[in-house]
Amino acid sequence: MAKEITPRSEDYSQWYLDIVRKAGLADNSPVRGCMVIRPHGFAIWEKMRDALDRMFKETGHVNAYFPLFIPKSFLSREAAHVEGFAKECAVVTHYRLKNDPNGQGVIVDPEAKLEEELIVRPTSETIIWNTYRDWIQSYRDLPLLINQWANVVRWEMRTRAFLRTAEFLWQEGHTAHATSEEAMEETLKILEIYRRFAEDYMAMPVIKGVKTPNERFAGADETFCIEALMQDGKALQAGTSHFLGQNFAKAFDVLFLNKDNQQEYVWATSWGVSTRLVGGLVMTHSDDDGLVLPPRLAPIQVVIVPIPKPVPALMEAADQIAARLRARGISVKVDNDDQNRPGFKFAEYEMIGVPVRLGLGQRDLDAGQVEVARRDTKEKANVPLAAIDEYVDQLLHDIQRNLFERAKAYRDAHITRVDTWADFEATLEEKGGFVLAHWDGTTETELEIKERTKATIRCIPLDGEAEAGACVLTGKPSQRRVLFARAY
Amino acid sequence: MAKEITPRSEDYSQWYLDIVRKAGLADNSPVRGCMVIRPHGFAIWEKMRDALDRMFKETGHVNAYFPLFIPKSFLSREAAHVEGFAKECAVVTHYRLKNDPNGQGVIVDPEAKLEEELIVRPTSETIIWNTYRDWIQSYRDLPLLINQWANVVRWEMRTRAFLRTAEFLWQEGHTAHATSEEAMEETLKILEIYRRFAEDYMAMPVIKGVKTPNERFAGADETFCIEALMQDGKALQAGTSHFLGQNFAKAFDVLFLNKDNQQEYVWATSWGVSTRLVGGLVMTHSDDDGLVLPPRLAPIQVVIVPIPKPVPALMEAADQIAARLRARGISVKVDNDDQNRPGFKFAEYEMIGVPVRLGLGQRDLDAGQVEVARRDTKEKANVPLAAIDEYVDQLLHDIQRNLFERAKAYRDAHITRVDTWADFEATLEEKGGFVLAHWDGTTETELEIKERTKATIRCIPLDGEAEAGACVLTGKPSQRRVLFARAY
Repeated sequence: MAKEITPRSEDYSQWYLDIVRKAGLADNSPVRGCMVIRPHGFAIWEKMRDALDRMFKETGHVNAYFPLFIPKSFLSREAAHVEGFAKECAVVTHYRLKNDPNGQGVIVDPEAKLEEELIVRPTSETIIWNTYRDWIQSYRDLPLLINQWANVVRWEMRTRAFLRTAEFLWQEGHTAHATSEEAMEETLKILEIYRRFAEDYMAMPVIKGVKTPNERFAGADETFCIEALMQDGKALQAGTSHFLGQNFAKAFDVLFLNKDNQQEYVWATSWGVSTRLVGGLVMTHSDDDGLVLPPRLAPIQVVIVPIPKPVPALMEAADQIAARLRARGISVKVDNDDQNRPGFKFAEYEMIGVPVRLGLGQRDLDAGQVEVARRDTKEKANVPLAAIDEYVDQLLHDIQRNLFERAKAYRDAHITRVDTWADFEATLEEKGGFVLAHWDGTTETELEIKERTKATIRCIPLDGEAEAGACVLTGKPSQRRVLFARAY
Repeated sequence: MAKEITPRSEDYSQWYLDIVRKAGLADNSPVRGCMVIRPHGFAIWEKMRDALDRMFKETGHVNAYFPLFIPKSFLSREAAHVEGFAKECAVVTHYRLKNDPNGQGVIVDPEAKLEEELIVRPTSETIIWNTYRDWIQSYRDLPLLINQWANVVRWEMRTRAFLRTAEFLWQEGHTAHATSEEAMEETLKILEIYRRFAEDYMAMPVIKGVKTPNERFAGADETFCIEALMQDGKALQAGTSHFLGQNFAKAFDVLFLNKDNQQEYVWATSWGVSTRLVGGLVMTHSDDDGLVLPPRLAPIQVVIVPIPKPVPALMEAADQIAARLRARGISVKVDNDDQNRPGFKFAEYEMIGVPVRLGLGQRDLDAGQVEVARRDTKEKANVPLAAIDEYVDQLLHDIQRNLFERAKAYRDAHITRVDTWADFEATLEEKGGFVLAHWDGTTETELEIKERTKATIRCIPLDGEAEAGACVLTGKPSQRRVLFARAY
């Protein structure tokens, strides 16, 4: 193999970092906690963004763009919001550099101090609701269904490429509604879009649920989420959709004239997914040979490798196959490198997760066939040249489905119903994954469980049935099971 | 009219701000110099971005993403770069807020001071070339053709929506090459992409040229640009493409092993266009009734208005027409608002610049025709229903071409060849536009002319012929005319 990856069995965490680096997804940067997203990683993010953007637009949302900076005082307006998380932020205090009088490069000009500090947005509710005050007068201005694609900064202490970085890219939707019901409907509509995106595009099964008050977004009345399970048995929060009630409308005085000619506070939602999804994608499907990508998000879906070299006859055949595949909307790369051997190239394309590889040798060509290798199972087949486009088209769908089903089988096998504290601890230690257990509904118990086991309540599943039981820690009565896990 | 716009003849600057605001392009924000890009403005920017992104990708470029923050010390590495412009920047000095012990909201935590300040990127050459050091080892790693779409911040004192804002959105390409020739070829290839985009999409004629040393990008060996002319006779720099030589490679130690097995510094280019283009678009085509958009960048290309109201029979006909237009790839809105009168709606759609409006009344329908109004000339025609899709398709092309030709006629009529200082001053004062005049080639003269007239050398046109003459100010010898103008 060209580049070694640490096996998952040896060190899952290092395996992840190896994949990120060796598949060309991201690099560390000289700025603490900030990553450089490399072209291959960014191409995956672009495909995610385009798919989500389409889904948002199909449901009536439009994009806009709000300032990067938030005046410090805005963060104090919504009390729960500032309590909850506005603290670890990048703070801009000055607006000019000058040459160091001692000739040592540049220094911050002390004369250029801002009257009020600016915060690099950690999320944009405050600045957006301050703007909505001007945009909303009457019920005719509602609903307002706006999304933005942006970078945000949260000064995380422990960072890891894609999963937790100081700066990350995301989309944040911020909608305004005339009624509570409509806002709740929007919150759940977006949650369903997130589920569909995760499952249909990322091939990553997720559980929809609602957060406990302790895990709620700061400033929300309810936070809904989708939770996925990674191969090491840890959960990943993959997206959140918040019902904000009238909290931000009250904090920023956003009133509207309703149909009865009365002033009312506006109802709000906000929702987001981020480049963290790229990390989730890696950890859901990849293996010890590199990245495994679902075809719908693969920047290159098929690579054609002439064997052993890109001689004219093979390249001509390869180009013809490529044209037939492209006519079906499949993205194809024809490898024309004449420096490396096929084995080296195969390993490289496995590393970067190209779903289907066609190996094209003269003997195959003479026999009217081509060798097709699928990345997910490593299986190979000889396929008649005449049917190759149909075959590959179908194979891409098969791979997409297989990845989802494989991930779902793993996930389903790692949801354990547990009724005793001993089993709870043992399951987390020995098996990992999601634990469905009864909880007495108090934050105190939730924190105690976290303290003892590092497991948190990922969500109260929306499709969970009511079921009387006893809290796994305290034995107090419980009405339904909730989903615990250790999480990223 | 629903909303009044200041006429251009009365106050061009206010006219521009009225259009930006009343066509829903942008709003001021509470953050000094930062704007909110509203949905309609952002939709135009998205169309620009998508077209440019396609052109970049067709020429082999890929996207990536580099950190928002740049360590302060990086800015001192390339001497000309820091001299040139790295001064008016947003500086991050702290990374945490805390609750004010006096209960007055939040304050910056003095304990959380960064060891080295971070600068919010004003442009990314330094952080990118610091990264390229790790990415480039040999000639096989070249060329590296990378672009990023990002926000940048320059602490401008006088700002104006889109044209000059503290934060703006842009793309910045940063490429690395093995030879000077190749880097220069790339620089000019991108300049030509910018010209094509400006002329073919924005319908905005531009002049390609090279900047004088005084107007060069800080750190570049040569800066090329496209220059457009606005309706008030002022020039707008619409895009720049820089040949950076080996300056950044030397500053960041980026060497590669060439084919002769020798270490060499890498050659570089960088290039960008920004949301400023939205301002240029407005000022090139719009009129006293509102925005005028070239069809290729119009978020809505055709609006169908049922007259006088959206009754079922009219809506059914409108939907059928819409379907036929959409089948041709045309974006259509069917107006179903039952509150406002047609006249009000017509004014609104003119305001936001929808290129073609179809008015659909029962009498028209009975007569088998529909009224078509074009936004650019305000002309109307009755068109047989059976041919409406063909007609509108052609009309959109006509409008696209007409806008370009109209703007080009204006621009060409405002390029004045001038040979005396008196004429130079008089032309700038009375006629405005571009002035083609001889210049002695010194920065001293260039600055003196700027001081006296506020006109700068926009560029030395690439297609200008050699022509001996005498400098319009000093009378010293000159080999060719250069392009002067007052500029945004």
